[in-house]
Amino acid sequence: MLTLRSASACLKKRVRYLATTTRYFPDEPSQPTIKTSIPGPRSKEIMSQLNQYQDTRSIFFIADYAKSKGNYIADADGNVLLDVFAQIASIPLGYNHPTFLELSQEPQFQTAIANRPALGVSPNVDWIDSVKSAFISVAPKGMSNVFTVMCGSCANENAFKTAFMYKAAKKRGQADFSVQELESCMKNQAPGSPDDMVILSFQQAFHGRLLGSLSTTASKAIHKVDIPAFNWPKAPFPKLKYPLDEHEEYNRRVEKEALEVADTIMGEGKVAGVIIEPVQSEGGDNHASPEFFRQLQALCKKHDALFIVDEVQTGVGATGTFWAHEAWHLPTPPDIVTFSKKFQAAGFYMHPRLRPGQPYRLYNTWMGDPVRAMQAAKIVQEIKNNNLLDNVKEVGQYLQDHLKKIPKVENVRGQGSFIAFDMDGRDAFLTEMRQRGVNMGGCGEKTVRLRPMLTFQRHHADILLDTMRKTIEC
Amino acid sequence: MLTLRSASACLKKRVRYLATTTRYFPDEPSQPTIKTSIPGPRSKEIMSQLNQYQDTRSIFFIADYAKSKGNYIADADGNVLLDVFAQIASIPLGYNHPTFLELSQEPQFQTAIANRPALGVSPNVDWIDSVKSAFISVAPKGMSNVFTVMCGSCANENAFKTAFMYKAAKKRGQADFSVQELESCMKNQAPGSPDDMVILSFQQAFHGRLLGSLSTTASKAIHKVDIPAFNWPKAPFPKLKYPLDEHEEYNRRVEKEALEVADTIMGEGKVAGVIIEPVQSEGGDNHASPEFFRQLQALCKKHDALFIVDEVQTGVGATGTFWAHEAWHLPTPPDIVTFSKKFQAAGFYMHPRLRPGQPYRLYNTWMGDPVRAMQAAKIVQEIKNNNLLDNVKEVGQYLQDHLKKIPKVENVRGQGSFIAFDMDGRDAFLTEMRQRGVNMGGCGEKTVRLRPMLTFQRHHADILLDTMRKTIEC
Repeated sequence: MLTLRSASACLKKRVRYLATTTRYFPDEPSQPTIKTSIPGPRSKEIMSQLNQYQDTRSIFFIADYAKSKGNYIADADGNVLLDVFAQIASIPLGYNHPTFLELSQEPQFQTAIANRPALGVSPNVDWIDSVKSAFISVAPKGMSNVFTVMCGSCANENAFKTAFMYKAAKKRGQADFSVQELESCMKNQAPGSPDDMVILSFQQAFHGRLLGSLSTTASKAIHKVDIPAFNWPKAPFPKLKYPLDEHEEYNRRVEKEALEVADTIMGEGKVAGVIIEPVQSEGGDNHASPEFFRQLQALCKKHDALFIVDEVQTGVGATGTFWAHEAWHLPTPPDIVTFSKKFQAAGFYMHPRLRPGQPYRLYNTWMGDPVRAMQAAKIVQEIKNNNLLDNVKEVGQYLQDHLKKIPKVENVRGQGSFIAFDMDGRDAFLTEMRQRGVNMGGCGEKTVRLRPMLTFQRHHADILLDTMRKTIEC
Repeated sequence: MLTLRSASACLKKRVRYLATTTRYFPDEPSQPTIKTSIPGPRSKEIMSQLNQYQDTRSIFFIADYAKSKGNYIADADGNVLLDVFAQIASIPLGYNHPTFLELSQEPQFQTAIANRPALGVSPNVDWIDSVKSAFISVAPKGMSNVFTVMCGSCANENAFKTAFMYKAAKKRGQADFSVQELESCMKNQAPGSPDDMVILSFQQAFHGRLLGSLSTTASKAIHKVDIPAFNWPKAPFPKLKYPLDEHEEYNRRVEKEALEVADTIMGEGKVAGVIIEPVQSEGGDNHASPEFFRQLQALCKKHDALFIVDEVQTGVGATGTFWAHEAWHLPTPPDIVTFSKKFQAAGFYMHPRLRPGQPYRLYNTWMGDPVRAMQAAKIVQEIKNNNLLDNVKEVGQYLQDHLKKIPKVENVRGQGSFIAFDMDGRDAFLTEMRQRGVNMGGCGEKTVRLRPMLTFQRHHADILLDTMRKTIEC
């Protein structure tokens, strides 16, 4: 569609690697099947019905999950697409994964689904097992506490609350809450509702859409306009040039400049916590160097602010390490790491020193969902048993190598299979790719982001790459 | 424990009604069984392990849900308690209800649990059925749109966003967003992040603990202190005297005074929405008259603010109507009604005129959970098929009649089985009741709140009342 190139020129450039690993889904489709336009007539019919009750303008198509398998998503019209968008990066293992289907037959799981507990009041006898096998077994080093909630935005907002309570407790020292604090907070006024503590985030960041998290988000104006916000500051996120290794000096300079701004803002003494994504995802898949993050952590220590790493999109294996921040080799762990999406369960890790001094300050009705925690435990097990992190690294390298050779594809960047590139005419490209059987998504202004599942392999990558070449060349 | 009274004096006061209805759970225990102190040694052992990873100070005891049934919750030590707290008012039908257990065997349900969708991108072919059978079938009159999320706080915050967007769009008229608005909101500054729009709530209110919803909450200072808040106003919630019918003139006056303050605040022109609970629950089970709510709605119309009814705790039958606000006989429907807890699914209803003009403004990754929506549909069906609203009304009346005769029990008030009373020495009473086999909870300063399931019947009420009498008289 974008430019016309000869098929032979294209063929010469292709290097077919042989897939050496076992297929994780021996019974998934071998390729996409496209029968109708996407969305097809049946999708459109359902969307039109649904539109009476819900806004359907963001819907790509109506899925048929019973017929979906592994890396392939089926739709209401019998189309079957290779899925590298994976429900906005939130499917870990693939559709109808046997381990999830088996789990749903287990009595413990059925007890959990039929009896939703208030985990802060009466957790079940097996909750401790889920906490250990799902969360603690993969806890970032030194972070032995986990607080679970229902979604990524809630995880981030509770992380902010933790930072504020921690900072306030430090300021207060041994003193108890003052009467003035307790009374003024009931009127949303200082000193009880402090106006001298903020969360620092970065330009183009995405940390959620609730009123606190939206104040730290800055990916798109349409998400923010008309919604009151806390007047919290933003530092520039370094705008690096790709490939990173060809622009080292330039990139070091812009990272240094960004850190200087962060240092200045933190120097004002109001920052209780700094939140940052390992890769700015919704904001355009913007990367920074491990050294940048190490220096940012050092600034947090210098200014006594909590270093909060938002791993909602990057966590759980897609970057080739279980947590993306492992690749930074920090001298000490972050203070808080938040998660959701691919983990199915949401929440955050923290160092136990951050536990509030009084009970009921980090609290809500459900405090997470044991069902999703049981699934999270299975995800951890599958990743370990099948060396899925190795798969992610290998297929990610393969993808990056080949994407760089496709015309019109610019600024290929990534860690593991968490890969993106820029493209003029991005929106038309995505529509055309979907029509050719590959479901993918965008982010930022003109970025295409690949968010395949952890079981995405070379034979899937070949279909993706082939389809891209055909789409771009037609 | 509280005062010594003779058993005979007590017996004289008792009127045993014969239970005339079928038992909803023929196989549930006939009475509590207490073997150990609560929490027992096994609970304490698990709590001590869990405390390495999570704050356990709020936990009553460790439950054993596989052994729980109907209105009875089992714990890790083999104790079985009649449960009138029901996971902070969030269990609708009872533990291990057959309809939930059967549902978890259905292929559609298992597909839903194994394939968690991004509902704003690719809902499943049966999502439309869940929307209709779970939500639309019980939609408050005139409210044909529903937005689903993951918890009650998220429901309220998205309701606030809806109010802000609606108010801003009205102010803006036909004009598009200005460049200044789009640029300033990215810096969290006015006019894009408006500082001239607020949500009005009420003193003692509880609407959640995230940073926006916490700004509308005012039930306890410990929930709010040290957390930055939007400087949003509070009107007094009328402090009525109970029983309501004996203090009509006084109550009318305090309601009028509260409405005058609300009118004055709204007259300042900043209020985009007013949020209120039908019964202020966490704040102490504070009631107001239907006339109060009708007049509040009229004020919202006068000042062009959305009338948001928070039915997170009151919704789904406990007050004897499916939505508590049905009892107000409003001339026109509320603008927004939020729900969660007993419905298992969370979200809000709205009039379609409130749908934002642009897509992706009310949006997040999961936008609810089809599994919980399927359960919600079953809850609706059970309520209808078994006339559970009639049961709630009948048992509620029975409870109120008898509670009023128990010494030390003050200010009995309620709608349906959503009942509360005040008691000096409340905390010790709750501990003692639990030790005698009845699990119950408090709210406000000295209030005991009953939050039984919808299948709580007279024979359960008799056990509750008997145990209360014994506890109070010993």
